[in-house]
Amino acid sequence: MAPVDVPVALLGYGTVGAAVNRFLHENAGDIERATGHRLRVVKALVRDLKKERDFPAAPGILTTDFAEIADNPKLSLVAEVMGGLDPTHKYILRLLESGKPVVTANKQLLAQRGAELFATAQEAGVQLRFEASVCAAIPVIKVLRESLVVTNVHRILGIVNGTTNYILTQMELGASYEEALAEAKHYGYAEIDPTEDVSGADAAAKMAILATVAFGSRVTLADVQFEGVEHINSAHVAAARQMDMVIRLIGQAALVDGRYDVRVSPALVDRAHPLASVEGPFNAVMLQGDAIREITLEGPGAGGIETASAVIADMVSIIGTTGAGFLHNDACWRTLDRLPAGELRSPFYMQISVDDRPGVLARVAECLASHSVSVARLVQTQVEGGATLHVVSHEATYGAIEGALEEIRGLPESREISAAFPVISQRGISELGWT
Amino acid sequence: MAPVDVPVALLGYGTVGAAVNRFLHENAGDIERATGHRLRVVKALVRDLKKERDFPAAPGILTTDFAEIADNPKLSLVAEVMGGLDPTHKYILRLLESGKPVVTANKQLLAQRGAELFATAQEAGVQLRFEASVCAAIPVIKVLRESLVVTNVHRILGIVNGTTNYILTQMELGASYEEALAEAKHYGYAEIDPTEDVSGADAAAKMAILATVAFGSRVTLADVQFEGVEHINSAHVAAARQMDMVIRLIGQAALVDGRYDVRVSPALVDRAHPLASVEGPFNAVMLQGDAIREITLEGPGAGGIETASAVIADMVSIIGTTGAGFLHNDACWRTLDRLPAGELRSPFYMQISVDDRPGVLARVAECLASHSVSVARLVQTQVEGGATLHVVSHEATYGAIEGALEEIRGLPESREISAAFPVISQRGISELGWT
Repeated sequence: MAPVDVPVALLGYGTVGAAVNRFLHENAGDIERATGHRLRVVKALVRDLKKERDFPAAPGILTTDFAEIADNPKLSLVAEVMGGLDPTHKYILRLLESGKPVVTANKQLLAQRGAELFATAQEAGVQLRFEASVCAAIPVIKVLRESLVVTNVHRILGIVNGTTNYILTQMELGASYEEALAEAKHYGYAEIDPTEDVSGADAAAKMAILATVAFGSRVTLADVQFEGVEHINSAHVAAARQMDMVIRLIGQAALVDGRYDVRVSPALVDRAHPLASVEGPFNAVMLQGDAIREITLEGPGAGGIETASAVIADMVSIIGTTGAGFLHNDACWRTLDRLPAGELRSPFYMQISVDDRPGVLARVAECLASHSVSVARLVQTQVEGGATLHVVSHEATYGAIEGALEEIRGLPESREISAAFPVISQRGISELGWT
Repeated sequence: MAPVDVPVALLGYGTVGAAVNRFLHENAGDIERATGHRLRVVKALVRDLKKERDFPAAPGILTTDFAEIADNPKLSLVAEVMGGLDPTHKYILRLLESGKPVVTANKQLLAQRGAELFATAQEAGVQLRFEASVCAAIPVIKVLRESLVVTNVHRILGIVNGTTNYILTQMELGASYEEALAEAKHYGYAEIDPTEDVSGADAAAKMAILATVAFGSRVTLADVQFEGVEHINSAHVAAARQMDMVIRLIGQAALVDGRYDVRVSPALVDRAHPLASVEGPFNAVMLQGDAIREITLEGPGAGGIETASAVIADMVSIIGTTGAGFLHNDACWRTLDRLPAGELRSPFYMQISVDDRPGVLARVAECLASHSVSVARLVQTQVEGGATLHVVSHEATYGAIEGALEEIRGLPESREISAAFPVISQRGISELGWT
């Protein structure tokens, strides 16, 4: 069956806009098979047609004329990724009024002027979605609005600004505030003018949006008291360390006796608390409620592709819930084969009991080497009349490990293989080197 | 406007069923205002009408006759919380065939016979939702299906069984396997027959469901290789500790060169890895993909009210996406007042520089006491010509802290208040005492 054609437009074609277009291009096949729909960017509003772009749009896509989008009746939806309050505000109102669903990543616009936008969408009977406005790819808006809408979430604790979290993490490693900020700029975690991030205004806007959705009552940026990290110095960080705590810029939203309190400030976080382990540009949001106790969502809180992923998730939610949505039933849209059991790769831990005789270690090592299992760590401990070898291998296939252990089992000195477990050590993200 | 009436039926009225009914009763007002709908349990299928129940149903609700549910054309949807494969399977098929949306918490049924159920739902054009089947209140199914459906999630790492995680956590604290299992039974984390949990079969079924949704291809229980914790002993735990690791029962699902591998086994987890800090009966699922890097969801993985919360979330998703759904626009359904800024409570850290003169500590302590700020920890360090006081208070209002600091600032010995931050130490759940 031919996929349903979904022509979309973008307001803005910067880092996020280009990433949306790239993602839709590069994953078109998978998206079609998963959803039955073909999303394609047909117009993108820019200020300068000639600027160099990450993922250049095809000829005819870029335009400087908003009317080419506003007056195009064929567009299924529009994603706003240009930022700013004006003229963005007016553009979104116009699109909603003309019956076009809108996806926006614009936290300041929502936190300052959300009421009018939603009232307009409501009146026009079209969707306005905003997952990308808070914590990029972390789907906290969908979770709050759809999974927890009837759960009384009465407290939110969040690290919702990656720039300041990166700065604070670097300060823990010994950098001064100025050095950490310079590094954040160098790696692209901070803007050239970092004021919105370091002042707490960015986090405050996100907390206003989260509180609005969690509490079901409008909270605007003006309702949030905020303080940033500009005055945090190495002495603060050292004092925190002395008490086995770390400093984090924490957003807090609480319902207290039927009234709300939303604020952002530096806070001391106990090292055993989950928010203490959120490092670098990562974000985390903890949602507390009676029925759910505490649910934590953690992930990358910024970045072009991460934000684009949230924008596209909202597009999919709109087309998946409008008319004959596809989000309702069987999740299967392809048939994959199972990987033969021995082919998966992992580092391994092996606990091997042996007689303590000369040469036994060499023979065990030979068995491992003959199956291309390379040793990362080896500890030998004495036990009654023998020895136990604790071996941690580098990544190897399950099959290679089994083969090596089989051979070890056959050694005359071998007593027992008392454990062979995979080892989970590196986070999937560590290879991306953000620390 | 009168709320839309949504009569629902339950298959089963055990711990989860009773919790669903209790939740819908106790939160009826909030649910109506948030959704415009009034969900009420009108029938619940049980085996024994006379059994004592947590939250007794009103007269006429309980029935032993499935036909009273199957043949009732007024029901908007049915939630299956009875468990088991038969006759549950046949009941759900019958309901779907007759056009009733179904919510199920039944992981084994889905992992073993999901294909037929979804094909039937598809054909009948009704929704079959199953959030509660994996990790209770943690909304990982919705996130995978709706937020990440077009993201290529290629690896899942999860702690998806709370019973075994509780056992392993207790073993780290010094318990033997047998002691830890007995304790898990005592606190209700383990069934009287714990085989399904400790063998890894429960985790395997959940991983089959997660892999199916993440990879978009059917994975059944028979496709999952699993090993439980029955053979984990104190020597394993000690060996892990020596290497600064912990043992966890880890579910892994991976896409490798277009083929899948799903398995459950004990694994060694580096203490710095996020899964190492998942303790007691908590669950966590890490989703790795190119565009999202790594998103982690953590929360309580079992429990009556937690599972009920997921069942109700699915009910809300069904009524919110069918016909004129309400999940599209403005999240505001009430108007709350802001809490006066000084009234929020928190423990605080204060860094106070003073002249190092006799009696200064007493005067600072008096200022705190006069505002009812009680001191939890106090450290005094010497600095050039003076001292710095590091004070951590017990919970106090922001107003009281400000008042006390104002007074301290007025002391003749006072030099500078160089920090006053809230302290985040206790998890919201800690008061529930699950450790």
